[in-house]
Amino acid sequence: MSNIHLDHISVSPLLPEVQEAMIEVIRDFKGNPSSQNVAGELAAEKLEKARQSVADLINCDPREVVFVSGGTESINMAVKGVARANVEKGKHIVTSNIEHNAVNRSVKRLMHLGWKATSVAVNEKGRVAPDEVAKAIREDTILVSIMHSNNEIGTLQPIDEIAKITKEKKVLLHTDAVDSVGVIPFDVQQVGADLVSFASNPYYGPTGVGALYIRKGSRIWPIIDGGVQEHNRRAGTENLIGIVGMGVAAELAKRDMDRRVAHLKKLKALLVKELPNYIDEYYVNGDIDTSLPNLVSVSVKYVEGESLMLMLEDAGYTVSTRSACATGSLRASHVLMSIGLDHADAQGTLVITPGIDNTEEDILGFLKALRDITKALRDISPLYKNR
Amino acid sequence: MSNIHLDHISVSPLLPEVQEAMIEVIRDFKGNPSSQNVAGELAAEKLEKARQSVADLINCDPREVVFVSGGTESINMAVKGVARANVEKGKHIVTSNIEHNAVNRSVKRLMHLGWKATSVAVNEKGRVAPDEVAKAIREDTILVSIMHSNNEIGTLQPIDEIAKITKEKKVLLHTDAVDSVGVIPFDVQQVGADLVSFASNPYYGPTGVGALYIRKGSRIWPIIDGGVQEHNRRAGTENLIGIVGMGVAAELAKRDMDRRVAHLKKLKALLVKELPNYIDEYYVNGDIDTSLPNLVSVSVKYVEGESLMLMLEDAGYTVSTRSACATGSLRASHVLMSIGLDHADAQGTLVITPGIDNTEEDILGFLKALRDITKALRDISPLYKNR
Repeated sequence: MSNIHLDHISVSPLLPEVQEAMIEVIRDFKGNPSSQNVAGELAAEKLEKARQSVADLINCDPREVVFVSGGTESINMAVKGVARANVEKGKHIVTSNIEHNAVNRSVKRLMHLGWKATSVAVNEKGRVAPDEVAKAIREDTILVSIMHSNNEIGTLQPIDEIAKITKEKKVLLHTDAVDSVGVIPFDVQQVGADLVSFASNPYYGPTGVGALYIRKGSRIWPIIDGGVQEHNRRAGTENLIGIVGMGVAAELAKRDMDRRVAHLKKLKALLVKELPNYIDEYYVNGDIDTSLPNLVSVSVKYVEGESLMLMLEDAGYTVSTRSACATGSLRASHVLMSIGLDHADAQGTLVITPGIDNTEEDILGFLKALRDITKALRDISPLYKNR
Repeated sequence: MSNIHLDHISVSPLLPEVQEAMIEVIRDFKGNPSSQNVAGELAAEKLEKARQSVADLINCDPREVVFVSGGTESINMAVKGVARANVEKGKHIVTSNIEHNAVNRSVKRLMHLGWKATSVAVNEKGRVAPDEVAKAIREDTILVSIMHSNNEIGTLQPIDEIAKITKEKKVLLHTDAVDSVGVIPFDVQQVGADLVSFASNPYYGPTGVGALYIRKGSRIWPIIDGGVQEHNRRAGTENLIGIVGMGVAAELAKRDMDRRVAHLKKLKALLVKELPNYIDEYYVNGDIDTSLPNLVSVSVKYVEGESLMLMLEDAGYTVSTRSACATGSLRASHVLMSIGLDHADAQGTLVITPGIDNTEEDILGFLKALRDITKALRDISPLYKNR
């Protein structure tokens, strides 16, 4: 039975053009971009072409793009690099309750070393209020880090409004835009953040490669020291194969953005509209009006999300219950708890993330499977019987 | 004119088997190793198979292997991660004068934050004396970091003897073995280091991927925080394409080690033996008896290495003058200065690194080109005329 992939937040296939570009580099791998020879210059040209494509995707100067090994490294570099470089100004960071663990754990690491942090609460839709951020900023605040879109509920944050506040208060603003850049239009000049973390796989490029946008003039230290690569901001021989893949993916994401967003919005609208015809006693989490077009988070009452997910997979539909990065953790999602779900409902949550190749038929097929499996699980659920 | 690549220290082509394995992952990219679904499990299997191959290459338990984005990240993690995790014991590090900048700059970064370091001098062959290391270790020393082989002169260090000292003194020992692992036999049980940094490209795998060996029980912090990947030691969605390539390269390096080393030794012996028949007034740097089989460092007096390198490239032979990681720096190599070369001789140095596909004919052709170009450069050199 063929599998319908509705878990693009965990992994997306590589576009054919991305594959071909990467394979070309693999087949003819003979230059180090730092070498002063013909092969090295050709490799450096490929590197800079990719940097230009990535810069075009977010509308910045290519010199403001630093290639790293993925979204997580990008976030670590932003949070720790800014903290370290601005220690004379202060040691306080403002963040939110629904950040990815790459932000949370980077901040915790710094707190262990004497930094302080204030985490701003979100409303029941998962939105951060800009004036709450303004209130949290102190004299010694050196960084505000609020994610652009949430990877579990899809809610988009008003980063542009927050940027006005941080600019006025002269505090650097970082945004984890891993699930936004390449998926929805993202113009860093409009968004206004000083640092933006993003990856490549959310727009059908390879994993293991990402970038940090650093607005000119932002004080930041590297976290990986060594050679002079990336203008002394990120040492290590470059992952040229991955970077070239990211560049091509960025180019295609920019070219096809409108068409992709329209298609995904249509699939999402269909899923949300049809859900009540298939199951009852559920919530759609997040902010339906201001959220990622490729993500629907549904908490199905009286069932266990992991069972639901596994049975859906047997029926041919891949979705997830939570961030793949958090697999193995037994705790309920901190994001779902932050928007007010109780433990049981948080555990009964599915994250459905269609991709550009999914069809309306895929969505309707998924809904049928969801209906049947929910019924089967509820039939054996004591919680459901005793509700 | 076809190019003879004698600069494998900067970059090595990917073996056909490595290419095919990577292309297979690219073509069928659909699992996140952290996802609890069939595609995720298949991806996790690929990841663990690669980990086993890498563990087999250095003879350790696969659970002691952490995949990272390359040799530089591996070194940063070892140096900074050990420093941070053992701060209660002390803040002193012992290293040597000829380390790669990934070690040097990681140590400098820590020194900026209050750590102290002692750098042990090397002899004229570039060797560290184990008793000098013993003398440098203090009560508050928490790490000794000495490279296994030097990337500019090839000298191998007596890490096994140093390991006896660090074990007795209960200090962790890290070795940068980026240019040793996969190139020469490297058994971590014999070498005895607690942490070993290595990459993939030196043995014909991709760039942008590497690993850190962490002996069970060694206290170390991650430097990239976030998800639970790599048993909570290195967060971020894995670079599966690169890791699979590294795994296959490791498998082949182990299988073909003896044959490769014999071939490279033969080429090196030929080059060193024939050199005096082609040029005069030169040194071979490093320790000819105890050094990498694939590296010859030659300082040609009264010429400028960069001119030599560029003209050799025009003649069809690619070599380098120094580490690609240091390109763009105008300073003479700290390694060559440490073994006693003066500035002029250091600037006239070529690093010749044949690979497994080079032939004796390549070496003899290179020597002829070197002879002609050296003569041409010296004919216009005032230093040579006035010597």
